[in-house]
Amino acid sequence: MSSTIGNNIKISIWGQSHSKAVGVTIDGLPVGREINMELLQKFMNRRAPGRNKYSTKRKEADKPIILSGMLDGKTCGAPLCAMIENTNTISGDYDNIRDHPRPGHADFTAQKKYKGFQDVSGGGHFSGRLTAPMCIAGGIAKQILEDQGIKVFARILQIGDVRDADLSAEFANLDQNDMAMRLENVTREDFPTLNQNVAKKMQDTILKAANEGDSVGGIIECVITNMPAGIGEPIFDGIEGELAKAIFGVPAVKGLEFGAGFKVAEMRGSENNDEFVIENGMIKTETNNHGGILGGISSGMEIVFRVAIKPTPSIAMTQNSISIKNKVEEELEIKGRHDPCIVLRAVPVIEAVAAFTLLDLMDIK
Amino acid sequence: MSSTIGNNIKISIWGQSHSKAVGVTIDGLPVGREINMELLQKFMNRRAPGRNKYSTKRKEADKPIILSGMLDGKTCGAPLCAMIENTNTISGDYDNIRDHPRPGHADFTAQKKYKGFQDVSGGGHFSGRLTAPMCIAGGIAKQILEDQGIKVFARILQIGDVRDADLSAEFANLDQNDMAMRLENVTREDFPTLNQNVAKKMQDTILKAANEGDSVGGIIECVITNMPAGIGEPIFDGIEGELAKAIFGVPAVKGLEFGAGFKVAEMRGSENNDEFVIENGMIKTETNNHGGILGGISSGMEIVFRVAIKPTPSIAMTQNSISIKNKVEEELEIKGRHDPCIVLRAVPVIEAVAAFTLLDLMDIK
Amino acid sequence: MSSTIGNNIKISIWGQSHSKAVGVTIDGLPVGREINMELLQKFMNRRAPGRNKYSTKRKEADKPIILSGMLDGKTCGAPLCAMIENTNTISGDYDNIRDHPRPGHADFTAQKKYKGFQDVSGGGHFSGRLTAPMCIAGGIAKQILEDQGIKVFARILQIGDVRDADLSAEFANLDQNDMAMRLENVTREDFPTLNQNVAKKMQDTILKAANEGDSVGGIIECVITNMPAGIGEPIFDGIEGELAKAIFGVPAVKGLEFGAGFKVAEMRGSENNDEFVIENGMIKTETNNHGGILGGISSGMEIVFRVAIKPTPSIAMTQNSISIKNKVEEELEIKGRHDPCIVLRAVPVIEAVAAFTLLDLMDIK
Amino acid sequence: MSSTIGNNIKISIWGQSHSKAVGVTIDGLPVGREINMELLQKFMNRRAPGRNKYSTKRKEADKPIILSGMLDGKTCGAPLCAMIENTNTISGDYDNIRDHPRPGHADFTAQKKYKGFQDVSGGGHFSGRLTAPMCIAGGIAKQILEDQGIKVFARILQIGDVRDADLSAEFANLDQNDMAMRLENVTREDFPTLNQNVAKKMQDTILKAANEGDSVGGIIECVITNMPAGIGEPIFDGIEGELAKAIFGVPAVKGLEFGAGFKVAEMRGSENNDEFVIENGMIKTETNNHGGILGGISSGMEIVFRVAIKPTPSIAMTQNSISIKNKVEEELEIKGRHDPCIVLRAVPVIEAVAAFTLLDLMDIK
Repeated sequence: MSSTIGNNIKISIWGQSHSKAVGVTIDGLPVGREINMELLQKFMNRRAPGRNKYSTKRKEADKPIILSGMLDGKTCGAPLCAMIENTNTISGDYDNIRDHPRPGHADFTAQKKYKGFQDVSGGGHFSGRLTAPMCIAGGIAKQILEDQGIKVFARILQIGDVRDADLSAEFANLDQNDMAMRLENVTREDFPTLNQNVAKKMQDTILKAANEGDSVGGIIECVITNMPAGIGEPIFDGIEGELAKAIFGVPAVKGLEFGAGFKVAEMRGSENNDEFVIENGMIKTETNNHGGILGGISSGMEIVFRVAIKPTPSIAMTQNSISIKNKVEEELEIKGRHDPCIVLRAVPVIEAVAAFTLLDLMDIK
Repeated sequence: MSSTIGNNIKISIWGQSHSKAVGVTIDGLPVGREINMELLQKFMNRRAPGRNKYSTKRKEADKPIILSGMLDGKTCGAPLCAMIENTNTISGDYDNIRDHPRPGHADFTAQKKYKGFQDVSGGGHFSGRLTAPMCIAGGIAKQILEDQGIKVFARILQIGDVRDADLSAEFANLDQNDMAMRLENVTREDFPTLNQNVAKKMQDTILKAANEGDSVGGIIECVITNMPAGIGEPIFDGIEGELAKAIFGVPAVKGLEFGAGFKVAEMRGSENNDEFVIENGMIKTETNNHGGILGGISSGMEIVFRVAIKPTPSIAMTQNSISIKNKVEEELEIKGRHDPCIVLRAVPVIEAVAAFTLLDLMDIK
Repeated sequence: MSSTIGNNIKISIWGQSHSKAVGVTIDGLPVGREINMELLQKFMNRRAPGRNKYSTKRKEADKPIILSGMLDGKTCGAPLCAMIENTNTISGDYDNIRDHPRPGHADFTAQKKYKGFQDVSGGGHFSGRLTAPMCIAGGIAKQILEDQGIKVFARILQIGDVRDADLSAEFANLDQNDMAMRLENVTREDFPTLNQNVAKKMQDTILKAANEGDSVGGIIECVITNMPAGIGEPIFDGIEGELAKAIFGVPAVKGLEFGAGFKVAEMRGSENNDEFVIENGMIKTETNNHGGILGGISSGMEIVFRVAIKPTPSIAMTQNSISIKNKVEEELEIKGRHDPCIVLRAVPVIEAVAAFTLLDLMDIK
Repeated sequence: MSSTIGNNIKISIWGQSHSKAVGVTIDGLPVGREINMELLQKFMNRRAPGRNKYSTKRKEADKPIILSGMLDGKTCGAPLCAMIENTNTISGDYDNIRDHPRPGHADFTAQKKYKGFQDVSGGGHFSGRLTAPMCIAGGIAKQILEDQGIKVFARILQIGDVRDADLSAEFANLDQNDMAMRLENVTREDFPTLNQNVAKKMQDTILKAANEGDSVGGIIECVITNMPAGIGEPIFDGIEGELAKAIFGVPAVKGLEFGAGFKVAEMRGSENNDEFVIENGMIKTETNNHGGILGGISSGMEIVFRVAIKPTPSIAMTQNSISIKNKVEEELEIKGRHDPCIVLRAVPVIEAVAAFTLLDLMDIK
């Protein structure tokens, strides 16, 4: 296992789905930063389970307890450790899994790696529950970034075959402050899309899958506004590489693209190249196919990336699996409480991971 | 800058397009491994410029000189340093760039980060030339992996709107050794595609763009066969995260997806989940939407990922840019020798980066 | 701050003297290792305050609560997080310190680095209290090392001018198992010295200083038996370098030497060189001036190092200090509960730090 | 092997005594810094062999060739790679060593670790020759530190039983600029001691040992002036810990102490505590037993540490060793060209290592 990430700010995620607590140790935060606990809680709530019919019925308050690293509401230089106690756990649901790996889960690969000693209850350390401490770290990072005017937003771009409006079309003539205002409103929605009619269709898609004992995937788009130019440490610690390493740490992510992303394959250089222009005395690019990053370094344009989230592997339908011990094929039924679509709850997680990664790269003292 | 990567094996890339040499320091290779220099040279040649009409006319022998780390043809425990001398450089082509950033290049962002002190000649440390030392490290890693039966292959999946055959369709009933044999042949082709008729169309696409003073992008697909199950260090040092960090270090990469990739958005869980089966007494999955990785850990299935490569930003057409100093818009014409499509030469680079990343994760002693 | 250490096993120490808890996150422990909590508690007790008249009267149970990383008493691959709640804290004692730095403490340097935002109560993150989580990590590491036959012992070599018997003289003809047996008994003593008459004199030295409102320093010697040959990653991650980095993280350490240590200055090569001999078919060195390490790598001989511990800076006597704000000299009286000699309680800490450092280097799977 | 060190500035040392070249890759230097190559060469010359009768007769120009990372004499952001070609090597001298380990050398431990694949010629990667690339990195770091007014000096404190004057006595009433001026003169001496009469006695001690086919050890003291307060990242990346890790990477180092060092054992708190005073409106400490570091952070006082260097293990006298293969004892005679005392040539190496370690911690942009 290596659940530690970061260069200037080291983030160490710990806990299992059914251990006493899950939490995070953050080593290297800038000092003297006020952390608004109420805002942090609001951010945590966006990820918390049990809020609506699109997510698991497991209810957790997801209330972070700060164990260290703060004094009078401000960071004090010492590593910040925060935990969330695990209270609403039902371990009995998972007895059968150690020998019968669930398709699409890490059960089989964990068994191979940890030789049967891994904690399988609720997915153990692989559980989506571990995105809660990611959100603690990211929620704190977001507040510190906002003090610099930098804002991190994510929205649902696609669920199944339902796709929200295109960013570049909607935002064509907006400056980054206006984008931020617009996206702020989007993230306040229960179902964060640019077009709320689309949100309704996405919800139908999820409920339809849920009713059929199935699940569905999607795409999240993340936009960071007012990122200063000149951040990123290429070749290997560029913004894209650092974000990629962190984002692929989020369970269920299978793809990541920046700016024009996979569409660049079909583009000509003359089309993909973002020409430089002067607007109100500021250097900008006319278009933003580069997603705010060139050569691993921020250009000052908004950073844009998209993340593909696979459908929840836990489904109610009977699936084919095996007994690892007996090497025979056996049918498997998965019990427990699961999200028919993890995308909605992953939205703040993507924001969180983006935020702590960028804060690490910015190296604010 | 941070051009160093790896945990067990630290790889440090150095050099600029027009410095005395480019090279790599590899610290932590397993000892006593024979490195076949002839094979390494053959691998280097796949990336070397000037070989055909689809690539830049700059000619470099790309001959690695081993400065340290080997004894009697074998790794000896000491860090391996290898360099390629830069001989065929024409610095005069680049005089204008420091103040007039080329669209799609890192000129502007480098200027912001390095305050004008960066080496702009030929792109400096951002040049595609730096993929040569990546190939030294990767070519060595490939040999060590092959000693374990693990093979790394990449092919061109797409150029412009021309797409090669789908892997899962072509390879449906093959075991991994047969896949390896088939892919071995593909990588021997001048233009590595499954379907050689498609290769012809891709070449036409490139030449058409070149004739119009333009360039074109594409997608590379990489397959790793016989990867043992149980490799990868989640949460953050899983195979996907580590590959992602390294792959986004390759210039021009804008997207990365594993297994079913972005298609997971449109899939149901029942479709995306790869069911476990027993075949000839071995545990496999029926399909490979997970791309050989679950929870960041290898499953024993072939690893599959795809990389989006943007069109070469250097094009012959006149483009709009600016003077950074004067903050006025100015037209820009780019001189120099450039690839109309970088995808072909990037194929061995993707193999190389995959190889050294996996070798690092495998921690072979 | 950077309170994280380790390559294969990352240890992250968190907490302040008066925060809710102090603790440690250990990422990368080998899986399936049984941790005996009773043994761990016994080890913790060796460091715990309030046990006798040579140490502070602050009483803490120092009972580690395992929050994550274990399943059925065994390590499960997930990061292990353990905390000790801070209960017996009296913050009022420290009100004056922020502006009036205590001589010999980190108050002034912390003020410079953390700009006044640091937690000063009880020394904050600089407190000796933070050696408790070091002991959790080290106590666990000791158990895993013992499973491999490797044992880590420390004893008091010197307090003031009272010095215990010389190791090489006492152990001249013992093999490492016999040494281990002998040292096992030493560490069971309330005052761990080879010669218990010396212990009595050391205690007198401490009490004399205490009675005079003063404190006294000392030297701890650490011996690791049955360390296999071939461990260590030179040039910079050799055993000496890795131990040094960790040991200097223990508060109050001002010197470190291996084997013959500073005496090598006065030695001839012919005297200092440890000649190789064959004993019972095994390769050994006749003497052990190299302290079990040559070129940063273990030789198979017992590892021996010594650590200089300064006198507790908190003394009852009035001292000269300053007001940082007013830049005037002011007298200072330190209140609170302090050890007149920290050496005794530092003995298990040195063992702990040595144990987790060696475990990290051994890279046991 | 792990020959890479540093957090903000990663330094990777490569080469063997008899490989094509030795060198260093430095990744993360601040940009736009002019490097005076003549000054660098002068610094290299202080370490170079063959200059006088106290050092080995192997003659090497030790002329660094900058392969990358500089543009027009200034750092350009790209990693700086520099090499020194190995020209004057006589490999035949070392044929016998692989099976017959030299006492006091790393031959035996390297054999255990690298299974016979290590390069033994001239000590391979363990050779003192590798301190040349350390000096390249350190020489560059020294120049950048000097731009900030920070100076790094080392002198010989002791050879055998001959000891130079005590620093605190000699420098009692000097401010740091005066100390720097005084030490500048000392480092210009062929034999850098405060008291040049003592230097003569030290030389006699060395020649006497050499004439008897033997060698002798010593102590180096290093002083860093005008270090700003507030540098260092405790708990584990404090100045002491970081310096210690780097310094123990220098061959032959067996001990390290800061400020009062091992003498603290015999001191009372009231004596060891350095009281704060105001001098000319500046905060200082009356004494400097803390060696300029409290809690791992610089106090603004001069940093002082001492390093114990063992006698050169290569001596002309016949020694007892073994055949590893045959497990029998055999006498050994060492041929080749060796320093009778390595301390003199180690002086600039200690400066170099201190300089690049402090530069890394200072994180100058």
